[in-house]
Amino acid sequence: MAIKTKLCLTIFLFFLLALLCSNLVTAREDEDPKVTTCKDHCEVEHQYDEEDKRICKEECEDYIKKKQERQTHKEREEKEQEKEQEQEEDENPYVFENNDFETKIDTEDGRVLILNKFHEKSKLLKNIENYGLAVLEIKANAFLSPHHYDSEAILFNIKGKGIIGLVAEDRTERFNLVEGDIIRVQAGTPMYLVNRDENEELLIAAFHMPPSSDSAPVNLEPFFGPPGRNPDSVLTAFSSKVLQAAFKSSRGELETVLDEQKKERIFKIAKEDVRELAHQRKISLWPFGVLFKGPFNILSNKPTFSNQFGSLYEVGPLQEKTGLEGLNLMLSFANINKGSMSTIHYNTNANKIALVVGGEGDLEMACPHTPSSSSNSKQKRSSISYHNINAKLRPGTVFVVPAGHPFVNIASKENNLSIVCFEVNAQRNKKLAYAGKNNIVSALDKTAKEVAFDLAAEKVDEIFERKEEFFFPYDDNEERKEERGRAFV
Amino acid sequence: MAIKTKLCLTIFLFFLLALLCSNLVTAREDEDPKVTTCKDHCEVEHQYDEEDKRICKEECEDYIKKKQERQTHKEREEKEQEKEQEQEEDENPYVFENNDFETKIDTEDGRVLILNKFHEKSKLLKNIENYGLAVLEIKANAFLSPHHYDSEAILFNIKGKGIIGLVAEDRTERFNLVEGDIIRVQAGTPMYLVNRDENEELLIAAFHMPPSSDSAPVNLEPFFGPPGRNPDSVLTAFSSKVLQAAFKSSRGELETVLDEQKKERIFKIAKEDVRELAHQRKISLWPFGVLFKGPFNILSNKPTFSNQFGSLYEVGPLQEKTGLEGLNLMLSFANINKGSMSTIHYNTNANKIALVVGGEGDLEMACPHTPSSSSNSKQKRSSISYHNINAKLRPGTVFVVPAGHPFVNIASKENNLSIVCFEVNAQRNKKLAYAGKNNIVSALDKTAKEVAFDLAAEKVDEIFERKEEFFFPYDDNEERKEERGRAFV
Amino acid sequence: MAIKTKLCLTIFLFFLLALLCSNLVTAREDEDPKVTTCKDHCEVEHQYDEEDKRICKEECEDYIKKKQERQTHKEREEKEQEKEQEQEEDENPYVFENNDFETKIDTEDGRVLILNKFHEKSKLLKNIENYGLAVLEIKANAFLSPHHYDSEAILFNIKGKGIIGLVAEDRTERFNLVEGDIIRVQAGTPMYLVNRDENEELLIAAFHMPPSSDSAPVNLEPFFGPPGRNPDSVLTAFSSKVLQAAFKSSRGELETVLDEQKKERIFKIAKEDVRELAHQRKISLWPFGVLFKGPFNILSNKPTFSNQFGSLYEVGPLQEKTGLEGLNLMLSFANINKGSMSTIHYNTNANKIALVVGGEGDLEMACPHTPSSSSNSKQKRSSISYHNINAKLRPGTVFVVPAGHPFVNIASKENNLSIVCFEVNAQRNKKLAYAGKNNIVSALDKTAKEVAFDLAAEKVDEIFERKEEFFFPYDDNEERKEERGRAFV
Repeated sequence: MAIKTKLCLTIFLFFLLALLCSNLVTAREDEDPKVTTCKDHCEVEHQYDEEDKRICKEECEDYIKKKQERQTHKEREEKEQEKEQEQEEDENPYVFENNDFETKIDTEDGRVLILNKFHEKSKLLKNIENYGLAVLEIKANAFLSPHHYDSEAILFNIKGKGIIGLVAEDRTERFNLVEGDIIRVQAGTPMYLVNRDENEELLIAAFHMPPSSDSAPVNLEPFFGPPGRNPDSVLTAFSSKVLQAAFKSSRGELETVLDEQKKERIFKIAKEDVRELAHQRKISLWPFGVLFKGPFNILSNKPTFSNQFGSLYEVGPLQEKTGLEGLNLMLSFANINKGSMSTIHYNTNANKIALVVGGEGDLEMACPHTPSSSSNSKQKRSSISYHNINAKLRPGTVFVVPAGHPFVNIASKENNLSIVCFEVNAQRNKKLAYAGKNNIVSALDKTAKEVAFDLAAEKVDEIFERKEEFFFPYDDNEERKEERGRAFV
Repeated sequence: MAIKTKLCLTIFLFFLLALLCSNLVTAREDEDPKVTTCKDHCEVEHQYDEEDKRICKEECEDYIKKKQERQTHKEREEKEQEKEQEQEEDENPYVFENNDFETKIDTEDGRVLILNKFHEKSKLLKNIENYGLAVLEIKANAFLSPHHYDSEAILFNIKGKGIIGLVAEDRTERFNLVEGDIIRVQAGTPMYLVNRDENEELLIAAFHMPPSSDSAPVNLEPFFGPPGRNPDSVLTAFSSKVLQAAFKSSRGELETVLDEQKKERIFKIAKEDVRELAHQRKISLWPFGVLFKGPFNILSNKPTFSNQFGSLYEVGPLQEKTGLEGLNLMLSFANINKGSMSTIHYNTNANKIALVVGGEGDLEMACPHTPSSSSNSKQKRSSISYHNINAKLRPGTVFVVPAGHPFVNIASKENNLSIVCFEVNAQRNKKLAYAGKNNIVSALDKTAKEVAFDLAAEKVDEIFERKEEFFFPYDDNEERKEERGRAFV
Repeated sequence: MAIKTKLCLTIFLFFLLALLCSNLVTAREDEDPKVTTCKDHCEVEHQYDEEDKRICKEECEDYIKKKQERQTHKEREEKEQEKEQEQEEDENPYVFENNDFETKIDTEDGRVLILNKFHEKSKLLKNIENYGLAVLEIKANAFLSPHHYDSEAILFNIKGKGIIGLVAEDRTERFNLVEGDIIRVQAGTPMYLVNRDENEELLIAAFHMPPSSDSAPVNLEPFFGPPGRNPDSVLTAFSSKVLQAAFKSSRGELETVLDEQKKERIFKIAKEDVRELAHQRKISLWPFGVLFKGPFNILSNKPTFSNQFGSLYEVGPLQEKTGLEGLNLMLSFANINKGSMSTIHYNTNANKIALVVGGEGDLEMACPHTPSSSSNSKQKRSSISYHNINAKLRPGTVFVVPAGHPFVNIASKENNLSIVCFEVNAQRNKKLAYAGKNNIVSALDKTAKEVAFDLAAEKVDEIFERKEEFFFPYDDNEERKEERGRAFV
């Protein structure tokens, strides 16, 4: 008996050893190690014939497959998210659709959508990492509660009629907003917004920037003021004792006041209240002078470029009395008529964050970076080639054009394309074009042009010169239609 | 026999398989997987009755528990360190205790403690990542050897009587320091410090900032000048040949001079030497004009706010002749009397790094970020809620209040609470309050107030208005005492 | 039988349990856990005597060793790459040789080499992470095609005779360049370069900086303008349809023009063309005023320091009409005569990126950081000690000297050493020396000097004072030769 047991044990331990070793060391590469372990056991079982082994192995697969399915299901969603992220990184880090936005506030009467942390999306966006964009949708006669941000905000009234209330230490100033209005809200300023129209939605783009150059990415976390407990006000974070001492009130009194407000952060208000808030007060006199600079309408400027194909309005750091003084930011509003396009051009200094607000069309951009090459810093020899970044544009699409990158915007044949652009680092920025009046190819001196093109200068000028500036027709020549595709492939 | 063994083997391998599979796949979630594996074995043992199984399982727990204890002990220290780190990240990245400081210099006659690399502690501190804080403790009549930093330093004399020597190309200028004195030491300037008191310790806070906006985090590595070999002087890093050529001296001569100094970096000096150094020279006349700007005393300013509950002194970027011109920094000194508190308020632009220098008390801050949410950038829908960050304050505690975050400081009933604050990004900063005279709730216009609170404006004002500004009594109402806790939970 | 089997099973399961547990829990620290597992099994085999156990264990080692060898081989290459990287990090992150450059353009007629992404090389280079350096080698009579960068570039003509063409919206301005010429090319400006000499190579250093302070690291990706398809022009990235519409041309016409240019990005041109381009036009009159600021020659300045051992020329942010206004950059050119050295000195604010352009020699620098200490942020107690960073210098070597770090440059006995330095953050920068006329040791006041050195002030002055300023003889004293090595080790 002892001998038998001993033998039995010895043989077993041998197999066990083999099994464990094989388990740990020889896992086949493409197979789940658990399946491998299980199958290895089938194999080392000398008493099995080939058929037994086969069945044993099948059972292994089956058993483990089922066990894993439950887990797999849970992981799939995660993986898909990751994959999405990777694809974004690989394919086009410069374009953001609606589903790239985070819904920060979501109520029946309005929403706040935000887009920020650009550097987490792609290394290529590092030069806009500090900025953020929010889109505010406020339904007819709705009210967005008083709140402040820890970042500077530039509001652009895209659509509808608004009221903005800005709060100082001792009083509030209100301004009515119309389409094209720009207003700056300095960091930390409490503000509220109202849609003063009874029917139309109010749509506002808010561009956020850090309050100074040495700051970190903007948070876009709103700090909602006193009223309310559900949703929270910042005061709800403080202890009861602090609140009682700060407000010199009993707990009961405080609860009465602060609990009263049970509405959402955006909610409909009575027409009389809207009318009261919309009422324009006269500019108050000294010593109660103007606390905040009112809105500036971008359409009140003469367009920088305008012809039958489109127009471009700009409000920049050099223009006074706009509220953008000292900000190193240019705000521009481009309207490209249906069937037209902008010239191929680039910004010398500015990085541009553009939001499509009307119509539809296309973006094409030349880009020397590929995400793969940018990640491989050890590559010592590189070829320079330019990629075509292209995207369909529709309302809500955001696209980024870094400084130096040539690009073009094209309106569809059906609708005019409207784009609001926030151009950061705008101080010495110029827009340089490759085509149209005043283009940098025609501007080359004769000898350099001939040397560079290996052609007579006149021949080059024939192609690059044209009388239109900045906006051109795109789709007027039907016979070119079939020739879609890259010119040089 | 062969049959028996075969049977034995077959059964065994079956169990083994079951055991391994269960081990790998079905570990229960809350139990140690090793215990689970072991217990699984007890269960699959068909020959066991229920009692056997129970005992078997108990043995499992016992056996593995003992095996692990040894390992556990070793790991515990590691884990605690990690845990500490995580807790910091998870719970309160805004508060630093004495043990968060690094002891840069540690001698019998004084110490230099530093706190920097904030961004490595938490992502939420990214906007102060470039700054650093050092605390210098210099014993009576001790001397801190000449050294320079590669960062700009703003020194604040917390306690005691100092002398600072600042070295230029051709001579040294000395200034006597008293409590409340602020002096700026530009990057790279060699300096030494002396405690000119025979008894009292000299305590100085040194706030370090990069010499320009496009720089990296400060290093807080002191570069100690010529004397000494143990501890090192920077000269000891150069080769013998370079030193001989630079100083036109033989190796022997050099060693004599440089070896002489065997003292620590902070050491006691003779009373006569202290007296000699403390001697105030007349301001020298042109052409040997003032090289360095002397100290400015923060207490010589009129307090920004002052009442029977506390006072706040500020020296900011707009005030001239303070030495802080062009720095985008505000230095403030708050004194909250025992049993009093500051109002609930926030800085619109400034990020504040505060050092408690006297008394004790509490901090409460409302914070919209949670570390978990900040790390999950893919979360597309987020609720906004505010967390209570709170901490006990005692001398040496450092806390950070980012721009926009409402907070409150409370002094204990026993002692006045004194805090030195370095507020960066101070250029357009305002302190806005939720309670007291001039608060941003009372400042809401009537209609907005009624709409936001859903209450009559008078009722709201009743709660939010009070005649005191900025500092209030905290603990005067004994009957509120038992109601500790958050107001709205 | 049942009993036997049961016993067999029971014993087995006990061993199995022991084995699994020991496997999971008691792995010895320095041994491969797989070997440990295997050996544990040998030990628990009660039927084995000591000899059996020994053999069993040996087999364990052998078996697993072989299994692992295959894997090891595969991993080795990876590890070596990592090791290489680590070594770079460990040993000297401040010095770059030719093979650290990336070859961006490589043709028969010239090359463009670049060095950037410093922060990826070492954390210690974070304060220069935004900058980049390119070296342009253009052969006799060769032409570098029109292109632009998304960064600001400061060109320094190291050697040879160049022509630079800068393109604006409506015309091009050309400037001839000679050795020592500095010219600023603003971000986005299209430019071309020509070597106007028939024999000598043109060598230019181009220092790149982001167009504003809140930007990301420079990319150094050139955007090549219209001509050419192989290599690419940026226009090749656009679709055929866009190009046809933008240039109002048929596909055929476009291809003729754009395909014509089949040359490389740098190519030889005819002597007449060079002569034509080199022709100096008169400065044009208003309204066609000067568009671009022409070159400024650094050698036209009076040297900051000059004696028989060397000279230092500087062009800084405070000097007008240099083209560097508003840039916070100082450009310096040091010439150290053979057998001479600079003083031991440091920059108070500036971080210096230096390119050796002639001769050879040595760098020694004192550095308080070690990469290991910088990575361990949790270290709460640190000793301060200074490391000797040293490197051989030869043409093409780049070295970085951060602010505050004392260093010295030494020319070889055979050749003068010439270095071009780009010093960023130069606004309030001073160069402070430890030796020579006007050194910060002699400048210590008498009492502080005596206390610090523990010696009579006269004795200290004897060593540190000398009449020469900034440049000294190095190798004049032959008898000191054998005493190589650190002075204090």
